[in-house]
Amino acid sequence: MANSIYSSQQLFQPCLSNKHCVPKKTNLLCFASSQLNPARSEVSFCTGTLLIPHPNKVERGGEDAFFVSNFKGGVIAVADGVSGWAEQNVDPSLFSKELMANASSLVGDLEVNYDPQILIRKAHAATGSKGSATAIVAMLERNGTMKVASVGDCGLRVIRKGQIIFSTTPQEHYFDCPYQLSSELVGQTYLDAVVSSVELVEGDTIVMGSDGLFDNVFDGEIVSTLAAYSDVVEAGIG
Amino acid sequence: MANSIYSSQQLFQPCLSNKHCVPKKTNLLCFASSQLNPARSEVSFCTGTLLIPHPNKVERGGEDAFFVSNFKGGVIAVADGVSGWAEQNVDPSLFSKELMANASSLVGDLEVNYDPQILIRKAHAATGSKGSATAIVAMLERNGTMKVASVGDCGLRVIRKGQIIFSTTPQEHYFDCPYQLSSELVGQTYLDAVVSSVELVEGDTIVMGSDGLFDNVFDGEIVSTLAAYSDVVEAGIG
Repeated sequence: MANSIYSSQQLFQPCLSNKHCVPKKTNLLCFASSQLNPARSEVSFCTGTLLIPHPNKVERGGEDAFFVSNFKGGVIAVADGVSGWAEQNVDPSLFSKELMANASSLVGDLEVNYDPQILIRKAHAATGSKGSATAIVAMLERNGTMKVASVGDCGLRVIRKGQIIFSTTPQEHYFDCPYQLSSELVGQTYLDAVVSSVELVEGDTIVMGSDGLFDNVFDGEIVSTLAAYSDVVEAGIG
Repeated sequence: MANSIYSSQQLFQPCLSNKHCVPKKTNLLCFASSQLNPARSEVSFCTGTLLIPHPNKVERGGEDAFFVSNFKGGVIAVADGVSGWAEQNVDPSLFSKELMANASSLVGDLEVNYDPQILIRKAHAATGSKGSATAIVAMLERNGTMKVASVGDCGLRVIRKGQIIFSTTPQEHYFDCPYQLSSELVGQTYLDAVVSSVELVEGDTIVMGSDGLFDNVFDGEIVSTLAAYSDVVEAGIG
């Protein structure tokens, strides 16, 4: 029931390629802009990261963890430690940090075969810390296909020409209890991951973060903030 | 910053496999539930469709069109004719209906190669009617991979265990002017399609529709309505 015929005077839209985002209220943000390799017509991530611990969690550096890899087209991942473990005298950051460390070391693993869901399986299996975490992994093929696997309420947005064209959807059991990879048997596993993929083009911007980002910053704010910056690599400084 | 540790007493969630949805306010809805073929451990769509023209457009049968095919794991598609053409004395339903008819006949085309973006390209090229339409096509591989290509503000949701786990995101130039395939050169093409995919499992329910559905029915209402029905095939009757 769309009403308006598209006509030529509305053709122009600002190009937001290679922009980045400086978050105001979040605790973890990864952002990546795909770039064409002119020699080989292949894409890869251009990546910046920013970790802002919750003010109450600064002492331990927050409960979130991430890693970035330039393997193939690039890999970005975020894990968010479930804070409820603090009530059981377990540091909620240990599980998420070990999970990301394990994932980082397994990126080139033959059995993983550049599949983010298998990377989650193997990284989870290798994690010995007590605790639990939500996690998201995105792996870019050089042909532009970005595969995403997510357990819980970390998230990812793809912004193209000033619009969000792809979003992940959070999974939760009930309010504030997300699906989570756990040291305990009752938690979720890689089998519970939502596995999706999206075809990227040069200049797309990817924003990945924990729920600390997406619960506090509207999608429209993410897009408008992106418009104010021009270099994703500098994001860590921003 | 998730707070709640997941514990075993919350493990149960109702299974919504093979449910369907009877819309109250929409003009077009396709829904499909994936089913395991026990002999071959492969999935395919179990599909029901419902077309409710806008009350002001009943005479021409509405401006939306769709098709369903059981080729491979199944194909579902929706197109929404842009109503603004009526002001130019062009029946807005002609373009969308011809586009879907062409897409339907091209599903098995070798050049399409079961790629929804190429199906949109060839169906658009074959469409001679004056007008424009938004369109979405989803093609299910028997291994569970559903590829989706969308131009404009038609949409798709995947519901698993009572939760939306995958959503498409609408594209628009400005309010009420979606990206659209057009008979005119100023419109969009298959190159503007957002191409994504999601790994389905047995029992997932897919709801596809025009913006007439998603602009009028909240995602939560879609999920709660699904919970009340048990057979997606009967949806056309419902």
